[in-house]
Amino acid sequence: MSATIEYWFDFVSPYAYIAAQSIEALAAKYGRSVEWKPVLLGAVFKNTGSMPLTMRPPVMSDYFKHDFQRSARFAKLPFVLPDPFPINTQNTARVCLWMQQVAPQRVGEFVRSVTRAYFSAPAAINDAAWLSAHVQAMGLDGAAAAAACDDPIFKDQLKQACEQAVAQGVFGAPWIVIDGEAFWGNDRLPQVEAWLANGGF
Amino acid sequence: MSATIEYWFDFVSPYAYIAAQSIEALAAKYGRSVEWKPVLLGAVFKNTGSMPLTMRPPVMSDYFKHDFQRSARFAKLPFVLPDPFPINTQNTARVCLWMQQVAPQRVGEFVRSVTRAYFSAPAAINDAAWLSAHVQAMGLDGAAAAAACDDPIFKDQLKQACEQAVAQGVFGAPWIVIDGEAFWGNDRLPQVEAWLANGGF
Repeated sequence: MSATIEYWFDFVSPYAYIAAQSIEALAAKYGRSVEWKPVLLGAVFKNTGSMPLTMRPPVMSDYFKHDFQRSARFAKLPFVLPDPFPINTQNTARVCLWMQQVAPQRVGEFVRSVTRAYFSAPAAINDAAWLSAHVQAMGLDGAAAAAACDDPIFKDQLKQACEQAVAQGVFGAPWIVIDGEAFWGNDRLPQVEAWLANGGF
Repeated sequence: MSATIEYWFDFVSPYAYIAAQSIEALAAKYGRSVEWKPVLLGAVFKNTGSMPLTMRPPVMSDYFKHDFQRSARFAKLPFVLPDPFPINTQNTARVCLWMQQVAPQRVGEFVRSVTRAYFSAPAAINDAAWLSAHVQAMGLDGAAAAAACDDPIFKDQLKQACEQAVAQGVFGAPWIVIDGEAFWGNDRLPQVEAWLANGGF
């Protein structure tokens, strides 16, 4: 049994935003920590020919937009669908990977605050300037964060993370792995908790 | 506020099987009854270009087959993926519509027992002979049930139900509607219960 659980996500995913707010506390309740795994859903979706939920036929995308709101409300979280949506989040992900090096114990806080900002009000979470200011406000080195956006080290780490995601069968977000058992979706949190509590079911 | 909630489903849907086992008790807890709405997902899927979960790319279909099992286990229900799967269920649906006329108070029991039979062991739930025997075992008129499979009245009712499903935006199963609010999926039952308990949230 590993002490960590994997949390694969894209900063642009509404359901990953919702689950991200509680996953670390849930893991801690059962003596686990979270290994945050930012990826780009665009890269992941290519493997299965999947489309973002809001780009599906109107009857579906309308339902999902409504369900994003309702699922956030159910979790007592704010939700405003960003415009434009979806966006690329490669810089956001790279700064997250940078933070895993310089302040690993702050990554959960970073993921929660960035996604919450993105789904609460207009926030250019993929802009280096926005990321720099956000990281600075966390009391960390904003200039170094901005630099991470163009750093080949983090570009390469993100590319490898996307490849690893595809290789291990990740096809959506959030994607939670507990001791090899994969759960897809915010709506699987009750099963995730039962799995953590009982070591499977 | 209506005294009923709509439960749109196909007898072939694993997640609709799981939710069907508890939806009537859940509704009753909040003073509601269930309006069972059998449809054919094949007809519904055409509207959005959707594919059965088990016919998607292997990485997805493998996940779903595993999740069917796990979600059933989580609900303390048996689950064996039928072979072949999926199948057409037009006769099963027509007998369900017939039962709504002759024994409306038994429809929930019919849905629960037929889906449970289908997902527990080999059971030809779309065969008139199987349906006849199953209905007979319920103490109802098995021969009349078999006749309903070819009765233009129930053929037409099912066709209209599929058209109505598409017209009101149903694109998957189970699809639960409470006072106009639509919830898709067995995994939305916690939200369904909160909605029933509070008249929305």
